[in-house]
Amino acid sequence: MSDPRPIGVFDSGIGGLTVVKALRDLLPNEDICYLGDTARVPYGPKSPETVQRYAMELAEMLMRKNAKVLVVACNTVSSVALPLLTKKFSVPVIGVIEPGARAALQATRNRHIGVIGTRATIRSGAYEKALRAADNNVRVSSRACPLLVPLIEEGLLDDDVTDRMIMRYLEPLLADGIDTLVLGCTHYPLLTGAIARILKRQIMLVDSAQNCAHVVEEMLDRQSLRAARLNRGELHVALTDAADNFLNVARDALQLSFGEIELRSLP
Amino acid sequence: MSDPRPIGVFDSGIGGLTVVKALRDLLPNEDICYLGDTARVPYGPKSPETVQRYAMELAEMLMRKNAKVLVVACNTVSSVALPLLTKKFSVPVIGVIEPGARAALQATRNRHIGVIGTRATIRSGAYEKALRAADNNVRVSSRACPLLVPLIEEGLLDDDVTDRMIMRYLEPLLADGIDTLVLGCTHYPLLTGAIARILKRQIMLVDSAQNCAHVVEEMLDRQSLRAARLNRGELHVALTDAADNFLNVARDALQLSFGEIELRSLP
Repeated sequence: MSDPRPIGVFDSGIGGLTVVKALRDLLPNEDICYLGDTARVPYGPKSPETVQRYAMELAEMLMRKNAKVLVVACNTVSSVALPLLTKKFSVPVIGVIEPGARAALQATRNRHIGVIGTRATIRSGAYEKALRAADNNVRVSSRACPLLVPLIEEGLLDDDVTDRMIMRYLEPLLADGIDTLVLGCTHYPLLTGAIARILKRQIMLVDSAQNCAHVVEEMLDRQSLRAARLNRGELHVALTDAADNFLNVARDALQLSFGEIELRSLP
Repeated sequence: MSDPRPIGVFDSGIGGLTVVKALRDLLPNEDICYLGDTARVPYGPKSPETVQRYAMELAEMLMRKNAKVLVVACNTVSSVALPLLTKKFSVPVIGVIEPGARAALQATRNRHIGVIGTRATIRSGAYEKALRAADNNVRVSSRACPLLVPLIEEGLLDDDVTDRMIMRYLEPLLADGIDTLVLGCTHYPLLTGAIARILKRQIMLVDSAQNCAHVVEEMLDRQSLRAARLNRGELHVALTDAADNFLNVARDALQLSFGEIELRSLP
């Protein structure tokens, strides 16, 4: 039994392509439809109500592409809209928070976990809730890092200004005594190299993109939703506004290949 | 004769409050309705078509407030949507590009002008066109500075990371030999202090907010649209999404006072 429908993946913009990369590596037979809301990016500074409304619109657009599962490749959306999306749609909805929290709990030794993300993600407390629900004794230190997304989108992945901002954001978390750091924004895996270089001592980095892909794989197996083994999975990318510079940054850094970008109008 | 209708001012977000500040100082009797599209900010990385569509929606919302003039307090919108807005609405429409270009031509001695702005503003070439239309012999060096808006919105107005980015962006313009620099984004007046400190040699800074306010004053006089002299002008601020941190940054830096923020839904 196999299911030829595509996996639907959406994000506020281009950052969710880190999740697509992880899905492509793990599930090469699956077709993927990616939808990035570049007309309204970024979601990080916006209110929960606005983010929820936008998320519903994007999810509906992917359902019209006959998606068999909805992957929310955005921590901001996952942190405020997952219950709503789960309630509204009949297909499985998988976010990035739960998988990241689970992997962090497996990685930590001193039970003290750091979380970085956009202002909206950190303000929601979604990682704390997910971590504490699984382990009541875990300590969590979290920090909003609002400048990392613009720095990444400018392609400053290996740059002294970016290094300074990372250091400034992470210093209080290190002083707190974390041994594990959750990269709680789908842009951040593009900074894994820089963050690892700056954190000279041993901090485990938890990449929510990879962990999300593992949860998608488990779910497809459990519900017998895998594509046929002989299928050569295709990646289709749609955006709500013309792609800017960051699409090239992401494509190069992730070594992703996809054809022409489809431009889709918002409702 | 006096005209009690408000001046309508709109922007992609909060940055246009620098124009409001200049209008308040110059025209204290005028009522001002400000509308900031915080639900879809920033416009800088978006396509001309999307920016035009958003601008028409905002202008219509202000016309329903009975605005006697529309002030486009955003360089990105001014650079791509002014002809469209002028055609569509019967009231005068004033942007920030023309006034800034005119002031730069008055300021320069060596006829070599620098322009900084968002990627959309610089890509549009709107300042070059306005400058060359007035003086065919002027030289223009321009540079997109996409990280300055996020740095300002984070309140890093006096910070070594911001100083480094300013230096990096301005060095090529200084090497080119400009003697005048147009701050071609309504956020940038908040960095006037930092930019002046970094530019140790004498470069004239042209603030498009102040020059825009002067053009509004001239137009009101010419068309007999001034409010009554005894009117105590009121400022009303509406946003399309809940205000974030940057509203406090701007309010403090500009010493603006206004009452409760109105939250307005987009069409």
